[in-house]
Amino acid sequence: MAEMRVTPWTVEGKIEYERLIKEFGTAPINDELLEELKMLAKKPLPVFLRRGFFFSHRDLSLALKEYKEGKPFFIYTGRGPSGRMHLGHILSFLMAKWLQEAFGANLYIEITDDEKFLQKKEYTLKKTREQADKDILDIAALGFDPDKTFIFKDTEYIGRVYPLMVRAAKKVTFSTMKAVFGFTNETNVGLIFWPMYQVMPTFFEKNRALIPCAIDQDPYWRIQRDIAEGLGYKKAAAIHGMFLPPLQGVEGKMSSSKEESAIYLDEDAKTVRKKIMKYAFSGGQPTVEEHRKKGGNPDIDISFIYLKMLFEEDDKKLGEIYNAYKSGEMLTGELKDYTAKKITEFLEKHQEKKKSAESLVKKMMYDGKLAKEMWERVYE
Amino acid sequence: MAEMRVTPWTVEGKIEYERLIKEFGTAPINDELLEELKMLAKKPLPVFLRRGFFFSHRDLSLALKEYKEGKPFFIYTGRGPSGRMHLGHILSFLMAKWLQEAFGANLYIEITDDEKFLQKKEYTLKKTREQADKDILDIAALGFDPDKTFIFKDTEYIGRVYPLMVRAAKKVTFSTMKAVFGFTNETNVGLIFWPMYQVMPTFFEKNRALIPCAIDQDPYWRIQRDIAEGLGYKKAAAIHGMFLPPLQGVEGKMSSSKEESAIYLDEDAKTVRKKIMKYAFSGGQPTVEEHRKKGGNPDIDISFIYLKMLFEEDDKKLGEIYNAYKSGEMLTGELKDYTAKKITEFLEKHQEKKKSAESLVKKMMYDGKLAKEMWERVYE
Repeated sequence: MAEMRVTPWTVEGKIEYERLIKEFGTAPINDELLEELKMLAKKPLPVFLRRGFFFSHRDLSLALKEYKEGKPFFIYTGRGPSGRMHLGHILSFLMAKWLQEAFGANLYIEITDDEKFLQKKEYTLKKTREQADKDILDIAALGFDPDKTFIFKDTEYIGRVYPLMVRAAKKVTFSTMKAVFGFTNETNVGLIFWPMYQVMPTFFEKNRALIPCAIDQDPYWRIQRDIAEGLGYKKAAAIHGMFLPPLQGVEGKMSSSKEESAIYLDEDAKTVRKKIMKYAFSGGQPTVEEHRKKGGNPDIDISFIYLKMLFEEDDKKLGEIYNAYKSGEMLTGELKDYTAKKITEFLEKHQEKKKSAESLVKKMMYDGKLAKEMWERVYE
Repeated sequence: MAEMRVTPWTVEGKIEYERLIKEFGTAPINDELLEELKMLAKKPLPVFLRRGFFFSHRDLSLALKEYKEGKPFFIYTGRGPSGRMHLGHILSFLMAKWLQEAFGANLYIEITDDEKFLQKKEYTLKKTREQADKDILDIAALGFDPDKTFIFKDTEYIGRVYPLMVRAAKKVTFSTMKAVFGFTNETNVGLIFWPMYQVMPTFFEKNRALIPCAIDQDPYWRIQRDIAEGLGYKKAAAIHGMFLPPLQGVEGKMSSSKEESAIYLDEDAKTVRKKIMKYAFSGGQPTVEEHRKKGGNPDIDISFIYLKMLFEEDDKKLGEIYNAYKSGEMLTGELKDYTAKKITEFLEKHQEKKKSAESLVKKMMYDGKLAKEMWERVYE
């Protein structure tokens, strides 16, 4: 089994989430906190919350306390345009969407075209920006409030944030960047400076930012929390998600650069079915006879995990599948078939929404209520 | 005598210019090159050129060759707003002005408000930007062509250059920055990235940039020359000036932070006279009798050096002063009096022009012909 490695640029090995909580110094999301969230939200929790896939946080309790006191948080998340978007990319966005709907909060989405170009040797800036535009269409199709959501590309919005970014950068040395991100003397100076940009949206409002993200992004918030108050802003709160595992099994995460590890947002029913059938790691037995006799193991079965994390909203139904698979009553082929159908259902809806998302993109980027405000100001 | 130290942030000790040419790997400006320059300019050389105060260059001959072939160079210089402007700050601008007049070239002036804030511990960004506005008024009053000159503040123009800056930054590692600028692990990440901005204006046109600057700025052009062609641009040419010495003598340079070392652009006749009388290092003898007998040494006399570098255009007159002071015929008081008058004459003219420079600022920054073009484009 590969050694666990979790940084913003590498996720490898069997991820031990409890260990990450300890190493990163975050807090676990417990039942009490989920109850509080549900009560304030006045609506049911989404599957990825109630089934524990958002498992860790920083200051979420504080953000909710402030909300109750009439100081609402705002939401910030983002995307590095490093390749076609797949299912693993949407978890944070779905979390953001739920939070926006439940709390009426503004949502800021940073598209880090500069970062991906600086980080990937073979990328051109042109290619990265084109990928960014494609991603933005997918993101907009997920359905945020177009007057309360601002999507921006780093290379395009820099003029509005650079003065504040310079003030923040003065507080962070190369030593800190080395320690937090593992940069070396051979890292390019664009990438060394860049983390300051990822911190910027946490200062878009004077209220507290709440950041739904995968746990590998947490190092940025450690830097943010060190410097925020000195700049007159609040420490960011975060709610950390697990990684959607690749088709091959529970180690690492879905990766854009490995075709066979991921299900992409633009794939059709046939492709999804083929990939699930061919690649999805199975907790079943080698033969039907053996499976009927011994039963399968849903806890390591990728199809089952996808249902549990995202695609089966009905808890009762999920429980039935779990039991049927475990007892051997349900065969691997049946589970895979069901999962492929559920994923396809989701993707077809998404692809349909994407067809008319251009006007949403325009609103969220430039002329919706929040976007307009964001283009009229400069952060200093 | 203090050890010579010349970096963009420190100039100390007795400056050995010949040694700098060797250490920096630049070329000396010889008589042949001056002849060529004079012939192409179709006008007399300014004092600081014909008396050798611009003493070194990179690819100036090549820039002139291209000019003859119909590929004109453009001019780039700048200013870090670190305190009130003094006489030492204007040499590069006067050189730029002469080049613009002689060659009809576009001139770009970068005001590095971000850099000075990042570099000086005690500065606020607000203060640095206010200082920048004051400096711009002084610079505009020096009288450039308002339709061929673009003055910009870094924090304001970043949106138009950032994509290209990111492309440039990907080619430069922290190792290189350490070697070139002496950065350490404790340097803040804003300053580590910043040199890429100083390089940007060399890419404002596809033709070659010619940069009049003090020799301490040369490290930036070494980086520029390493990466320019890989980005589709030309290696910058530079013409390097000596430092205007402080009133106290020929070591180091005039410094904004040492009141008694400098004559500021906003000082009146009385102050200038007082400073010259009190502080200007004299090459004269301790007593009048001794001076009459032994004569003075104009070569180390700061008043004489100021006349030679900037304020006495008449070569014949300068020669007479030299001889009279050397022979003991002219006394230190007389030389100082003459110099104070010449400097005051220059400053009064400048201060008069400054009164009506607001409209020039507006043209050079926003709505002159070149400025308008510069705000309409983005460098990618």
